[in-house]
Amino acid sequence: MLITNSNNLKDFISRCLSSCSISNKEVEIISDLMTEADLRGADGHGIFRLPQYVKRIRAGGININPNINVAKEHESVALVDGDNGMGHLVMRYASDLAVKKALKTGIGWVGANNSNHAGPASLYASIPMSRDMIGIYIAVGSANHLPPWGGIDMLLSTNPIAIAIPALNEKPIILDMATTVAAYGKVKTAAEKGESMPEGWMIDKLGNPITDPKRSSEGFLLPIGDYKGYGLSLVFGILAGTLNSAALGKEVIDFNSDFITPTNTGQLIIALSIDRFTEISIFKSNIDNIIRSMKGSATLPGIDGIRLPGERSWKIREDRKKNGIPIHLDLRKKLDSLAKELKVLPLQLI
Amino acid sequence: MLITNSNNLKDFISRCLSSCSISNKEVEIISDLMTEADLRGADGHGIFRLPQYVKRIRAGGININPNINVAKEHESVALVDGDNGMGHLVMRYASDLAVKKALKTGIGWVGANNSNHAGPASLYASIPMSRDMIGIYIAVGSANHLPPWGGIDMLLSTNPIAIAIPALNEKPIILDMATTVAAYGKVKTAAEKGESMPEGWMIDKLGNPITDPKRSSEGFLLPIGDYKGYGLSLVFGILAGTLNSAALGKEVIDFNSDFITPTNTGQLIIALSIDRFTEISIFKSNIDNIIRSMKGSATLPGIDGIRLPGERSWKIREDRKKNGIPIHLDLRKKLDSLAKELKVLPLQLI
Repeated sequence: MLITNSNNLKDFISRCLSSCSISNKEVEIISDLMTEADLRGADGHGIFRLPQYVKRIRAGGININPNINVAKEHESVALVDGDNGMGHLVMRYASDLAVKKALKTGIGWVGANNSNHAGPASLYASIPMSRDMIGIYIAVGSANHLPPWGGIDMLLSTNPIAIAIPALNEKPIILDMATTVAAYGKVKTAAEKGESMPEGWMIDKLGNPITDPKRSSEGFLLPIGDYKGYGLSLVFGILAGTLNSAALGKEVIDFNSDFITPTNTGQLIIALSIDRFTEISIFKSNIDNIIRSMKGSATLPGIDGIRLPGERSWKIREDRKKNGIPIHLDLRKKLDSLAKELKVLPLQLI
Repeated sequence: MLITNSNNLKDFISRCLSSCSISNKEVEIISDLMTEADLRGADGHGIFRLPQYVKRIRAGGININPNINVAKEHESVALVDGDNGMGHLVMRYASDLAVKKALKTGIGWVGANNSNHAGPASLYASIPMSRDMIGIYIAVGSANHLPPWGGIDMLLSTNPIAIAIPALNEKPIILDMATTVAAYGKVKTAAEKGESMPEGWMIDKLGNPITDPKRSSEGFLLPIGDYKGYGLSLVFGILAGTLNSAALGKEVIDFNSDFITPTNTGQLIIALSIDRFTEISIFKSNIDNIIRSMKGSATLPGIDGIRLPGERSWKIREDRKKNGIPIHLDLRKKLDSLAKELKVLPLQLI
């Protein structure tokens, strides 16, 4: 297994982005967020996406010098125009604005349009959380892989949600989930690793299961809870997309195959001030109690313990901070090609 | 099949509640909302619950003269103390307050504690929607039927969410869903009707499916998307319960078996002003387009059409407005007993 660490990973991402003429300040924001994605185990959303991002940047599909601005603003809500910049920059900006509003009025709900793929949802929900707020992030996925329930036209995406809730002595609760049984990033990672997918992730146009991720283009993802997951994907898409005058449905550009057309990706972030409802310390202590109570549950035969949303991710983060970040050989090859193409030093392993 | 209509239904509910010394103004609010639940086809949440509500009221478990008040208030958020009143009253009050805040600042997020079961989630999400806003309602369910994923201790409920989005010429989109595969109300309705449940709704403590709803007390509900539905139920419970200093987990009172202990039910309502993001008419027209686009999808073999969230409910409403509301014989018997007990005229059929 090839191993690197977060410093090397961040340095490599920074070298690549800098070579694409992105400013130092913005490189810092993007590479920080992307590295955090890999640390947390979001393997389909960190450095894995770098070749694709660079391809789009070099094809002119991303504005490398965006004027990210507030298009509409009211006391507790705002709409941010991302000016087709990297999604990480747009949502970092939007998240900071949401926090600022929540400090004043109790809540900030900030939507964005003209944004792009921004990596894992948990990154942005964590921004209010780090300020002792509750963070909620919803995005329109960057490619349609989901038909409406019963249909076969791929009009929806995995439209994910993340909700981050601070705790006192326990790890925060961070739910980060696609509205499909599997996120498409997981399908791509499985293909990359040469692994097969369990039944229930994807079906083909006749309704038969697909288990070979290399056949993923022949079918589509399945929503959680059948029509319920379809409903969640649709309403999340409306909240993060349509409400922000961003793309949804047929307007969504597949960023895996089209590297030029502006995607007009829509996302939203909510920051909610806990201290307007109760004392922070009491709230956090209650969250600790809830976590311990869940973990204290007796289990079904064969189950060795209860996990909390985000727990696996925290464990991976601790492990990767200590022992490094694994890089699959296929990914390593792609990153080496990228380094050559950009004429920068390759990713250093440890 | 026994049939009544919405006027008779509302009159009967009103008679029963009035005989419990609830004020006319409050009877009007509750009976309106409960009747609307039956019209929309939420058969587990309308008049079906009346005997249980009355039992709790008569046992002293509900405050029939509550001082529903704003315990904490800031520009865009508030916490309502329901003073152990009927949940319908508390959430009608909270929803109106959320709309008021949204008119001023773009959004109102109002939580409630010391509330009670309030019927179907869609009722409250529809209140902002009727003002051309987006409505979002989340509640802690009134009995725990869901263990954490992998566990068998029932520490969570079906904690539902409803999101209501207005359209122009099409019917509004109203997603109203439990975070479990089936809501417990559906299990109760199935038991009432003598029907069996499909596999996947409930399992017993060894992990085996339960299909006889009369055996429901031996097992628990299954969450949608396995650990994802568990995660949603947990974070929705924290948002609607813990944040509002309301009950969650072990603190939740099972309102099916305990009719005396105050439940300290938690709920929340969000009203979001669409016009702070885009022109209402443009938004609504875009929603129409999205609805038509979904319905235009080609279908899987054997599927005769695509439905939108809430569509079935709108169709039932139209049918029941025209042809009346069916009442199952078992329910009719219970309502007749209730009428006798309260010494009021029974439900009139048509």
